[in-house]
Amino acid sequence: MRESVRVLGIDPGTAVTGWGVVEGRPGAFRHLGHGTVSPPLKLTLARKLAHIHGAVVEQCATWRPHALALEKSFVGRNVQSAFRLGEVRGVVMLAAAAAGVVVAEYSPAETKLAVTGSGRAEKTQVERAIARELALDGAIAADAADALALALCHLQTFRLRALLAATAPRRLPLGAR
Amino acid sequence: MRESVRVLGIDPGTAVTGWGVVEGRPGAFRHLGHGTVSPPLKLTLARKLAHIHGAVVEQCATWRPHALALEKSFVGRNVQSAFRLGEVRGVVMLAAAAAGVVVAEYSPAETKLAVTGSGRAEKTQVERAIARELALDGAIAADAADALALALCHLQTFRLRALLAATAPRRLPLGAR
Repeated sequence: MRESVRVLGIDPGTAVTGWGVVEGRPGAFRHLGHGTVSPPLKLTLARKLAHIHGAVVEQCATWRPHALALEKSFVGRNVQSAFRLGEVRGVVMLAAAAAGVVVAEYSPAETKLAVTGSGRAEKTQVERAIARELALDGAIAADAADALALALCHLQTFRLRALLAATAPRRLPLGAR
Repeated sequence: MRESVRVLGIDPGTAVTGWGVVEGRPGAFRHLGHGTVSPPLKLTLARKLAHIHGAVVEQCATWRPHALALEKSFVGRNVQSAFRLGEVRGVVMLAAAAAGVVVAEYSPAETKLAVTGSGRAEKTQVERAIARELALDGAIAADAADALALALCHLQTFRLRALLAATAPRRLPLGAR
């Protein structure tokens, strides 16, 4: 793991896209910023997507993240809502690609597990865990909280992977290699 | 209807995106170009989307279309394929928005109906109808044929709407207004 890793979490949605930036250093996480993007309702779908894309381009330029952690949520959706969400995911990934930022995807269950220790945690548990971990006071918009949780999830997973990469080869039985 | 209307049809797909440009003048359609875009398989999803986006940006700059006709296909898809398709749709719409090109969406059934007279036409019937209407010789990639069909569909629908707009108000009974 590098000295510090900065992650931009994005919880995509046509109506509200949440974002949150967390920096991870050995033994500590630091909250850098969070917020939501809501394109004006009167815009066409294409212009709404342009609005969201512009916001993510700006986030990437402002925070220069090492990675973008994006929600990947297939469960409990119908085909039409998957289309709408896919469209937002598309323009978010495009912004990341243009900025040279790696995209990592996490399901809500993975995010909850990383942040609270349980893949089935309630929304309020996730929010409390984030507030504690990042020493935040006051209420955060739900979509921004989810975005911060995604960023934290990536940092946790990243750290875990680094630890596993350092230790796993010696600990795996021969048959598993 | 203007003197001529130029339409860029796009049949989106992560592996292959078809495109086709048709110009409509009163009483005649003219084929301007068609082709397919296939991002290298080894690219990440984000870079594939950037590849497709770049191609559509280029099409819009080259052909300066009045409208982009995009396939809207909910039927027979599962949630995961809807996500993938939505991502491509998102970057296509973004390219249109940036170029100031209006996006019109048509389902496969609407496209088939406009081009062949039947919403349940077979793929080969659609291809024959396009070849006849646009005076094309030789085989066209299926995705490019679908894109040309989308462009034709928009021109037909557009013409129909213009005709209806010119005649409907006088023909509607009072109770329907």
